[in-house]
Amino acid sequence: MAQEKQLDDLFLDTLKDIYYAERQIAKALPKMAKAAQSPELKAGFAHHLEETEGQIERLDQVFEMLGQTARGKTCEAILGILEEGKSIMDEFKDTPALDAGLVSAAQAVEHYEIARYGTLKAWAQKLGMNDAARLLDASLREELATDKKLSQLAEVNLNRKAA
Amino acid sequence: MAQEKQLDDLFLDTLKDIYYAERQIAKALPKMAKAAQSPELKAGFAHHLEETEGQIERLDQVFEMLGQTARGKTCEAILGILEEGKSIMDEFKDTPALDAGLVSAAQAVEHYEIARYGTLKAWAQKLGMNDAARLLDASLREELATDKKLSQLAEVNLNRKAA
Repeated sequence: MAQEKQLDDLFLDTLKDIYYAERQIAKALPKMAKAAQSPELKAGFAHHLEETEGQIERLDQVFEMLGQTARGKTCEAILGILEEGKSIMDEFKDTPALDAGLVSAAQAVEHYEIARYGTLKAWAQKLGMNDAARLLDASLREELATDKKLSQLAEVNLNRKAA
Repeated sequence: MAQEKQLDDLFLDTLKDIYYAERQIAKALPKMAKAAQSPELKAGFAHHLEETEGQIERLDQVFEMLGQTARGKTCEAILGILEEGKSIMDEFKDTPALDAGLVSAAQAVEHYEIARYGTLKAWAQKLGMNDAARLLDASLREELATDKKLSQLAEVNLNRKAA
């Protein structure tokens, strides 16, 4: 009979979920950077791609701490979020609202990651995995900062268009 | 020739997106309340269902301000997020980790709404729709408070299980 599932199973499941999500995000960001109209937003996406690669490395380390092979598990949530971002890129291509739509799509991605890293960090602490909690917290802080930066970029862009 | 799409088109599109999402969430919450093990979490989901109904009414008002019929547009993101929540309910049914998984799923939902309401509020302000911005801000604040409450519930629950 299967052993009852516990918090560490849920932790591993969710780790696989965000690992898959981060890799999908790393594939999407170059397309978003290419589509962006403002140089600042292009640069913002390029910078976040570097951060995303660092976050994937941190997840690799957490898998290693668990004695597990780093492996993703299809994350329907991020697929849906990125699909919506793609629709905006198509529907608002070459319009003055494109960058606002891209920022909106990117912030939906950020908030997904903020939710997942927040949860994983809390669970790592509860499971006594303090080194893992520190790594997850570092990624959480980056995501929170990126979300804030995107809000600022959106503000500047929208004011410029309105001028 | 079609007129070039602008920020107000994007605003309406995103309003339809969150309207669809809120209605899906209203359908999911009773199932999450039923599945939850702790009475506090059950009560939390029931309370959030009431809030969600109020948020749908606010969206109805914003549609009315735009002279538009309130109508949703399939939101792949929320479908993916709720699908993941359903998987957790199935996979962790009757296990000690179920409530932690439910909170995690609910926080992913909250963060999606936080992203969308934050964006819509900023756009409403930019479009000079101050009454709409106030309504969207009220929902944004509720979502932020719910996310915080969920973190606290998770903490209490996990400590109880660990005790």
